[in-house]
Amino acid sequence: MSDGGGGNSAYGHKAFHRSKSRFTDRITADGREGRPVTAGRYRLVVSRACPWASRAVISRRLLGLEDALSMAIADPIQDDRSWRFTLDPDGRDPVLGIRYLSEAYDRRERGHEGGVSVPAIVDVPSGELVTNDYQQLTLDLATEWTALHRPGAPELYPERLRDEIDSVMADVYEDVNNGVYRAGFAREQGEYEQACAGVFRRLELLASRLAQRRYLVGDTITEADIRLFTTLVRFDAVYHGHFKCNRWKLTENPVLWAYARDLFQTPGFGDTVDFDHIKRHYYQVHTGINPTRIVPLGPDPAGWHAPHHREELGGRPFGAGTPPGPVRAAEEVPARGRP
Amino acid sequence: MSDGGGGNSAYGHKAFHRSKSRFTDRITADGREGRPVTAGRYRLVVSRACPWASRAVISRRLLGLEDALSMAIADPIQDDRSWRFTLDPDGRDPVLGIRYLSEAYDRRERGHEGGVSVPAIVDVPSGELVTNDYQQLTLDLATEWTALHRPGAPELYPERLRDEIDSVMADVYEDVNNGVYRAGFAREQGEYEQACAGVFRRLELLASRLAQRRYLVGDTITEADIRLFTTLVRFDAVYHGHFKCNRWKLTENPVLWAYARDLFQTPGFGDTVDFDHIKRHYYQVHTGINPTRIVPLGPDPAGWHAPHHREELGGRPFGAGTPPGPVRAAEEVPARGRP
Repeated sequence: MSDGGGGNSAYGHKAFHRSKSRFTDRITADGREGRPVTAGRYRLVVSRACPWASRAVISRRLLGLEDALSMAIADPIQDDRSWRFTLDPDGRDPVLGIRYLSEAYDRRERGHEGGVSVPAIVDVPSGELVTNDYQQLTLDLATEWTALHRPGAPELYPERLRDEIDSVMADVYEDVNNGVYRAGFAREQGEYEQACAGVFRRLELLASRLAQRRYLVGDTITEADIRLFTTLVRFDAVYHGHFKCNRWKLTENPVLWAYARDLFQTPGFGDTVDFDHIKRHYYQVHTGINPTRIVPLGPDPAGWHAPHHREELGGRPFGAGTPPGPVRAAEEVPARGRP
Repeated sequence: MSDGGGGNSAYGHKAFHRSKSRFTDRITADGREGRPVTAGRYRLVVSRACPWASRAVISRRLLGLEDALSMAIADPIQDDRSWRFTLDPDGRDPVLGIRYLSEAYDRRERGHEGGVSVPAIVDVPSGELVTNDYQQLTLDLATEWTALHRPGAPELYPERLRDEIDSVMADVYEDVNNGVYRAGFAREQGEYEQACAGVFRRLELLASRLAQRRYLVGDTITEADIRLFTTLVRFDAVYHGHFKCNRWKLTENPVLWAYARDLFQTPGFGDTVDFDHIKRHYYQVHTGINPTRIVPLGPDPAGWHAPHHREELGGRPFGAGTPPGPVRAAEEVPARGRP
């Protein structure tokens, strides 16, 4: 997740540690934890800048949950009170009526400790935060919200493949999703080098895995692809320079670059990506590593639309299902964020 | 030139301005400015990190001036007294006997104002700085030191081509050599964007120019090629990430990348380049833009040795002359700095 405090809480530690989610209530089909899946009851709060939140943005689109689970998009630049709704009229989320996501956290637990992070799901009637558990949240969208999925929604976490998906995701999380952060927020050369080497070691392994197969697990898109994609799509734009993961650019790795383009061009992936939010967030918020707050002009993102030829490997992105329809007008990524 | 004070003097200005050289005595064949070219009398002080100093390192090799003009190599990391000879036994330059280059500046002018910069030429008998005029220094090596050139030395600044060479070098200086610094040291977004766009606009023009001709001016290596090379060789290693000149990597521009590799593989160019000094200098000295002082692991420099096929464009690197011989053992770039 992306937390508040300018993302600099990492600097309190010698090495970078990602905090565990503090609020982990699950919304389930049967309501066994007190929160039943209900159409229109909850609001997903995201930042398009944040890779952890972007998992949920993609899953929601792929599964067709737009009507059942509304979405609030925070400003990519947090202030000292963290994520805020400054993109909305009067700076308030129109559904929750709050200016800061922290207000939903406060309703849940006054004086709570720890950061304010996205993705978050808020209970609309009470205005209380339900969960900021970025690891569980999308798994529940895939498996607990099924009654509200669109017709033709893909199976993102199919039961028969869960062991393999979990195993792939665990490595991707450690070395890639979180590895880039450990490299970028390292305070010492050795700590950085270990993380950065781990990022590229894992990416090389993933490239081998993906050389002959279109998707990470099985022959359709799964949660594992979503989680790798959200890091890859940020790689050249921010992790390569800002986080110093610069052994090579994604565009220099033929397999991973084609894999990432394939997903980007799949409805539900690239149409959720806002490069403007991504670049401004990282470069302007992390003043501990970019004190000038200057946002680079590069790289040229035009290549995301280039043919990838991955369909030659077989596989069906949506299995027996279908792609999602067009993005709702209100949720379209503004032109300046699109490649 | 690269000056002292951690390179942060730029931050005193709203926009980055490169200081004029303060000491501009010329060493000439006829001694008309009081300093005659004399074998063994002067010492060239450089940092292998600095692109301005590296021009002189390359010229000296190409022209075979190693015996006539000895060379001192400063530590790539300045301290608060600027360039120092901490790579030498007891931290003293063995010829000048000084620990800091500033001591030669002080002998020339006690309490002089302005930075201590490389390249510098010091008069060995008096220990006084003669010149730190990085723009004139290499032109004089090419045109005033001719009596001491090796047999077969190339003409780096041939009289009949000077207008064209000067014109190309003026554009390259403004937009490329110094443009990357203006981008990297910008304090405001607009200032950065203007400089960065200028860098790539000029590089595209240079790529067009070099698509059908092997060298910038005429059909042999000239001073113009040396001055473009010293920026290009640092491009992916430091300017792309550290200075945010990241529209594309040099390796992504087929013409310029082949041109730069061709020069790199020409005796006198690549054999002077120390990527370890280059990376450590920029990333560790400019704490205003890299406060963690962490030096990235990438990029992989192995590609510098790949075939370039530029010989198919014709041209003769050394004209009627010959390449320089091998690097003197004492001046070899340590293995950790070589690709």
